[in-house]
Amino acid sequence: MKQQGIDVVSLATGEPDFATPACAKHAAIEAIQNNFSHYTEAIGIPELRRVVAEKFRRENNIACADESSVLISCGAKHSIMNALSAMCNAGDEVIIPAPYWVSYPAMATIADAHPVIVNSNADEQFKITAKQLEHALTDKTKCVIFNSPSNPTGMMYTQSEFENLAAVLVHHDCYIISDEIYEKISYGKVKHFSPGAIEKIAHRVITVNGCSKAYAMTGWRIGFMNAPPEVFAQAAKVQSQDTSNPTSIAQRAALAAVLHAGEDVEIMRKEFERRREMVCGLVDAIGGICFLQPDGAFYLWIDISSVLSPAVPSSAIFCEQLLEKFHCALVPGEAFGANGFVRISFAACDEDIRRGVARIEAMISGMR
Amino acid sequence: MKQQGIDVVSLATGEPDFATPACAKHAAIEAIQNNFSHYTEAIGIPELRRVVAEKFRRENNIACADESSVLISCGAKHSIMNALSAMCNAGDEVIIPAPYWVSYPAMATIADAHPVIVNSNADEQFKITAKQLEHALTDKTKCVIFNSPSNPTGMMYTQSEFENLAAVLVHHDCYIISDEIYEKISYGKVKHFSPGAIEKIAHRVITVNGCSKAYAMTGWRIGFMNAPPEVFAQAAKVQSQDTSNPTSIAQRAALAAVLHAGEDVEIMRKEFERRREMVCGLVDAIGGICFLQPDGAFYLWIDISSVLSPAVPSSAIFCEQLLEKFHCALVPGEAFGANGFVRISFAACDEDIRRGVARIEAMISGMR
Repeated sequence: MKQQGIDVVSLATGEPDFATPACAKHAAIEAIQNNFSHYTEAIGIPELRRVVAEKFRRENNIACADESSVLISCGAKHSIMNALSAMCNAGDEVIIPAPYWVSYPAMATIADAHPVIVNSNADEQFKITAKQLEHALTDKTKCVIFNSPSNPTGMMYTQSEFENLAAVLVHHDCYIISDEIYEKISYGKVKHFSPGAIEKIAHRVITVNGCSKAYAMTGWRIGFMNAPPEVFAQAAKVQSQDTSNPTSIAQRAALAAVLHAGEDVEIMRKEFERRREMVCGLVDAIGGICFLQPDGAFYLWIDISSVLSPAVPSSAIFCEQLLEKFHCALVPGEAFGANGFVRISFAACDEDIRRGVARIEAMISGMR
Repeated sequence: MKQQGIDVVSLATGEPDFATPACAKHAAIEAIQNNFSHYTEAIGIPELRRVVAEKFRRENNIACADESSVLISCGAKHSIMNALSAMCNAGDEVIIPAPYWVSYPAMATIADAHPVIVNSNADEQFKITAKQLEHALTDKTKCVIFNSPSNPTGMMYTQSEFENLAAVLVHHDCYIISDEIYEKISYGKVKHFSPGAIEKIAHRVITVNGCSKAYAMTGWRIGFMNAPPEVFAQAAKVQSQDTSNPTSIAQRAALAAVLHAGEDVEIMRKEFERRREMVCGLVDAIGGICFLQPDGAFYLWIDISSVLSPAVPSSAIFCEQLLEKFHCALVPGEAFGANGFVRISFAACDEDIRRGVARIEAMISGMR
């Protein structure tokens, strides 16, 4: 539609609308000039693995994190896929709380495993409870995936919530993948907590993070994970036969970002916080649709079920019509395993946020 | 050993000892400065797909190559892995001529398939014959992998050899992966030929190439393939769930290299040709060990079976002792599925080639 000259407003973006921090750009340019363009260790350069391990220990209290337990991959997505490939056999089950990030079920399937979806709801702030988890765990459960802050809901598990879940997990011999890619984008209500810091399950936790969201470095493709030795060993083997090392230049950029981009992160975080206030205010003013103020990430997860009707019976059709008639793009809840919801991204400029929400309002007005 | 201060000579390198062409470096730096650091299309940027398709059509006579059939991945290895993942189901067979590049059997296994090894020998210049291929094909054959120029043997299939193989393949409903990563490094005796140019099998050929060897860009991780629609579609899906786009900056570097690095390639190729003469002369002077002058790539594949003995019964032990006693690193034939051979890489400076071959000679003298 944009190519046809139509003025489409996209509030569907899944990446920060910021540039890579200057320190990372400089490091990459220097790496290019110095011909750091040959193969590196397939698991990533030692300096970066050391610095990431140090970050996991210092910021996330993951005591076991060490250069030898950190694998650098082509994005956090790749880290998760490598971990699942390493651990899963045919018939294994992977527990995925819904709403989930779109790729988890497909990734479990690619790894020959069976995704087991556990639904959460607004009353529980879209977080699964220990009771739900206990009910979902079976002898076939190989892994549970947590994502806090969550894409799409923006919710974060508190330390005590994770501890309650860990009290269940301690009785089940399965892995825990903790996807913490939105860690650096949170707004203070809930303090980010890594389940890998819980001693009694730490040896079974794979902590995944990366540069994409924290440093607005999506295109560079650098993710990393801290993994138990047996998962690390298999994941490293898979990676060495699949992609080999992530781009050498990008690894140098990542190293600089993790070491020196703290201020850039804070500038971006504050800007997202400001936009969060704005978008919450604007959507609240529409009336009749519900949302929870996000704890982290840059999404607003909106319950539009009250406005659905036989003419617009699903979020997918809502989004289709919103795009066709009002030229505003959102991602429908179905993509995240939850009909009746839409996801607004506020990784967009103020003007687009205002215009986009106005179009959503116009759409909803027309439905009433 | 190097870290201990030991003067090890490595003739084991699998990548050109050259810098990335200036045009590619400039393009990457420009991309960084222009903040081309966000997600791209998961299948690769359209400009690069177009230029690669054009290359396949013009240089390789692959008539069907088109922007929509070219997938950009994180290295040619990743292209092959994506293709195998896309096409193979449990129980499928993948025919792999030996000596083979080390990763092929592991990749087939990761894709749930069964590698079927077909051995070749020096009399056939380490190329499999149509008769051998016919014998190996079964109802379960999903794919045959060719690698010309070959790593490790340096041999290249001629057009008529590929046509003979195609005459067999035409009767079997299987895919052909043609790994042409060493295309640009060849020495004139055999003209590079792509089996994707053979009309009657073209619709089943996956042509794989990339920037690593042609442009000395191993660290950048850009590979590409031209694939039939059904393989392309599945491989694109796998890639989108696994790594997403290859590094955005690296794609821009690749684009510049494919378009503008022709002279850099020729300078490198000539240098490898010069070294080939040198290393062939030096190894020939040792006497008692056999090799064929390579048609392409930068390896010498040497038959050391005549010097093996109960004390040094295998290539692996030969290489182990060569490293321990004479501080020279080679890759043993076992890695490529062929005991009795070693691979010398001449991606090394003249001095290292001379010193390395002298150490091999000393080792062999001591064995006599």
